[in-house]
Amino acid sequence: MDASKALWQRYQHWLYYHEGLEFYVDVSRMRFDDAFVEARRAQFEKAFKNMADLEGGAIANPDENRMVGHYWLRDPDLAPAPELKQEIVETLEQIEAFTQKIHSGSIHPPDAPKFTDVLSIGIGGSALGPEFVAAALAPDVPPMAIHFIDNTDPAGIDSLLTQIQDRLPTTLVLVISKSGGTPDTRNGMIEVQKAFANRQLNFAKHAVAITGHDSTLDKLAKSEGWLTTFPMHDWVGGRTSELSAVGLLPAALQGIDIHAMLAGAKEMDAATRKPQIKGNPAALLALSWYYAGNGKGEKDMVVLPYKDSLLLFSRYLQQLVMESLGKEKDLDGNIVHQGIAVYGNKGSTDQHAYVQQLRDGVPNFFLTFIEVLEDRQGPSPEVEPGITSGDYLCGFLLGTRQALYENQRDSITVTIPQVNPRTVGALIALYERAVSLYGFLVNVNAYHQPGVEAGKKAAAVILDLQKRVLQVLQTESQPLSLEAIADKANAPDQIEAIYKILRHLAANDRQGVKLHGTLGEPASLKVVVT
Amino acid sequence: MDASKALWQRYQHWLYYHEGLEFYVDVSRMRFDDAFVEARRAQFEKAFKNMADLEGGAIANPDENRMVGHYWLRDPDLAPAPELKQEIVETLEQIEAFTQKIHSGSIHPPDAPKFTDVLSIGIGGSALGPEFVAAALAPDVPPMAIHFIDNTDPAGIDSLLTQIQDRLPTTLVLVISKSGGTPDTRNGMIEVQKAFANRQLNFAKHAVAITGHDSTLDKLAKSEGWLTTFPMHDWVGGRTSELSAVGLLPAALQGIDIHAMLAGAKEMDAATRKPQIKGNPAALLALSWYYAGNGKGEKDMVVLPYKDSLLLFSRYLQQLVMESLGKEKDLDGNIVHQGIAVYGNKGSTDQHAYVQQLRDGVPNFFLTFIEVLEDRQGPSPEVEPGITSGDYLCGFLLGTRQALYENQRDSITVTIPQVNPRTVGALIALYERAVSLYGFLVNVNAYHQPGVEAGKKAAAVILDLQKRVLQVLQTESQPLSLEAIADKANAPDQIEAIYKILRHLAANDRQGVKLHGTLGEPASLKVVVT
Repeated sequence: MDASKALWQRYQHWLYYHEGLEFYVDVSRMRFDDAFVEARRAQFEKAFKNMADLEGGAIANPDENRMVGHYWLRDPDLAPAPELKQEIVETLEQIEAFTQKIHSGSIHPPDAPKFTDVLSIGIGGSALGPEFVAAALAPDVPPMAIHFIDNTDPAGIDSLLTQIQDRLPTTLVLVISKSGGTPDTRNGMIEVQKAFANRQLNFAKHAVAITGHDSTLDKLAKSEGWLTTFPMHDWVGGRTSELSAVGLLPAALQGIDIHAMLAGAKEMDAATRKPQIKGNPAALLALSWYYAGNGKGEKDMVVLPYKDSLLLFSRYLQQLVMESLGKEKDLDGNIVHQGIAVYGNKGSTDQHAYVQQLRDGVPNFFLTFIEVLEDRQGPSPEVEPGITSGDYLCGFLLGTRQALYENQRDSITVTIPQVNPRTVGALIALYERAVSLYGFLVNVNAYHQPGVEAGKKAAAVILDLQKRVLQVLQTESQPLSLEAIADKANAPDQIEAIYKILRHLAANDRQGVKLHGTLGEPASLKVVVT
Repeated sequence: MDASKALWQRYQHWLYYHEGLEFYVDVSRMRFDDAFVEARRAQFEKAFKNMADLEGGAIANPDENRMVGHYWLRDPDLAPAPELKQEIVETLEQIEAFTQKIHSGSIHPPDAPKFTDVLSIGIGGSALGPEFVAAALAPDVPPMAIHFIDNTDPAGIDSLLTQIQDRLPTTLVLVISKSGGTPDTRNGMIEVQKAFANRQLNFAKHAVAITGHDSTLDKLAKSEGWLTTFPMHDWVGGRTSELSAVGLLPAALQGIDIHAMLAGAKEMDAATRKPQIKGNPAALLALSWYYAGNGKGEKDMVVLPYKDSLLLFSRYLQQLVMESLGKEKDLDGNIVHQGIAVYGNKGSTDQHAYVQQLRDGVPNFFLTFIEVLEDRQGPSPEVEPGITSGDYLCGFLLGTRQALYENQRDSITVTIPQVNPRTVGALIALYERAVSLYGFLVNVNAYHQPGVEAGKKAAAVILDLQKRVLQVLQTESQPLSLEAIADKANAPDQIEAIYKILRHLAANDRQGVKLHGTLGEPASLKVVVT
């Protein structure tokens, strides 16, 4: 049998097709052999068992002593307790009822008949899913336009508020934070509250909280009389919360069919629940990732959807994959430094950017192509006799996949019939499960994020240092060197951080801080407060 | 000396500061030692010599027999021939004059007093720079809003055209392609021309070409009587064309100060032209990249600007770095598979996504933080006593940099006073030069892109196959298996490609192609044309 026939056989042998979803997963261009698959079989058996336990309500996130229940959101009958099922069903009903009232105007802003815009304030798992889904699924003329504040950047907040200025009186604000204690989100909320106050608008009558029961934010919303609150369950992690109220409420407000999203995810969940490798598309992905990176993340995952509306899928996956798998220790406490790096934007655009390197350069990656069969709604004009823009898009994908394969660059291809709520729900569910399975294969806790917590603490140390430095400066009338300030603040080992804090304060005309001396030579600087 | 003091000494020793630009580059958290720097000195001497030759007009892109002249764009006096200088100066004057006429309405659409929007059609180097600059620098209320078609995705084009529907009669269209032969751009142009024709609008009276002298596109624009054309010089590559007409025209139309962009780049060019490592910020970057990846791209470059408006900088750098450096062969013809993978979005947002993995997981990267000292224009409200949103952003950056360093993850920090045309011009120039220097250090041609050409050819093969397959099907009345079609099309080794082409055609109701059989088993399929 010649090579092309063998490859065609391999393609057919490994092709996964989900009839209901019209969803294909092709791992034939990953060069694993049967011995590799056999060698993984015991690990997969264990992973399937672990997944069944997880879905049954086991404490799958031991560090935080939590269940991991995002799969129940799409099939509440699977929830391990009746009160959990009830919570899921009631939240969904609440989302629908609220959305209907907003769209109809029965809930409206104090001085206008209807809300026109949604401003979502959240970060990480409270932003990446909603942003991805808005780009993928929002109708071209949505019932409400959505905007995001997903950072604590003052200039970014100003720019956004300038853009929606005229519509602030008809803007519905969602504040999304499980604890209400995420500072980035809290800061965005305070800045927006101030913008409302500056316009004599009653923020509470525009505001909705999506947060954990009895969180700081929940209490704030209730005490201030916000429009309503929606729950964030403690058994749903941020990066798997797109099909909870976190993702469903913004989607519904934009007119996206959230039932179809849930149905697509539910069908994919059922397909990926099967305890087998070959007939389970999530297992095929996990197997391929393991093969590519030797179970150690030795290769980056480059994700290339050939469709503009899926541009943010790789950013969504960066969190889902890297925050889940990027761990220092395995579940037995061994130092493993696990993870898989993810990046990518879209094809064919990226072919004119970095595919040069993928093809010819460092072979430190494997690819995932996302193919969408439907080019557009309605017929296409020809750009050449018999050829459309969509044929080019298809041709670029096939040509690039083949050329990369010939250069020993492996790839997975995921094919969906169109970008719609059902297929996007299925994509999310597919990758959630693949990450879960891979996490078990490499024996890490895929549901905590100790490094994020540590990052927050490191920032808090800097802010505390800022306060101490300002206290020192307020009692001093003489210019002080950085070293002197560090000594007086009892932080002699923090001169560099103190320098940077002061440089930032001086650049923003804060507290009268000024730096005198040669800017390029920090040791020469004297700090004065005027 | 204790560790913190030593680190503070190292910080000051390596700190680069450009007084005119108020621009800092800090490589102190890259762990190279003096011996490493000494060992690179001869390579750098050669690289500086090569750079001087390049700027002097040597054929620095031997494969394409071209000069590499993007540095002349910001300092035309350096152009190696008077006619080159004249071309640069005249093009800039032409951009200014045209922009003035568009803004004043002296050039206006046939049926309206002024153009309101710009639609830019281009891909790769004709899109990434303009997109980055628009996001970074466009005023919140620009004189003209800009939109981009940067792909051959029919649904993406439809979505964009729906959004600007009402303003199509007052939209100025830029078509940007050096050869005019890039199919993605050509397709976008044809689709937009059709949208104009459908509205009985005269496309030519809205259209501007930015293209090479006498290219297909140049001829088309002239024969159809487009508003005007601007040159793309053959000595400017796509990925270094942001400060040519490609980037300057869209920027000027949005009201961005292009003289300040050019001035910032010119100042940075002067600073990075110095043949020394320590006093040259581009050399410091190249040195650090070499150190991080062992001169072989062994570590990914993660780029994290802590500023929303710089979100697209990493996408811009993906092309600049990866397309320049990602090469199979070095200049002596040795197989080297060079390159450096680049990814990143923005801080602090990404701290809530994948920084978990950066901190704890696979140590396969180094970081570049981009710090912006100015938080916003005007004062900030406090979010806690004495603390602003901008203090948090600063604290997250410093805390994360420190925490990553303690976990043996190295980083570079670039600090700019604010995001403005001058600093963005300087950033572009800094990275262009760093890439040039690194290219010489590792001895690759940083100015060609053979893999991109090869990708285009691979796609052309697929489109040709599509035509042949359709010819076969048009002469057949019987249902055919994929294998039979492949045989009749004289492509027996292309069954998989043929299957995918037909699956795509069937999904789009094209040419009456239908697939009968079990979709998950391609060998079972019979293809009919109805």
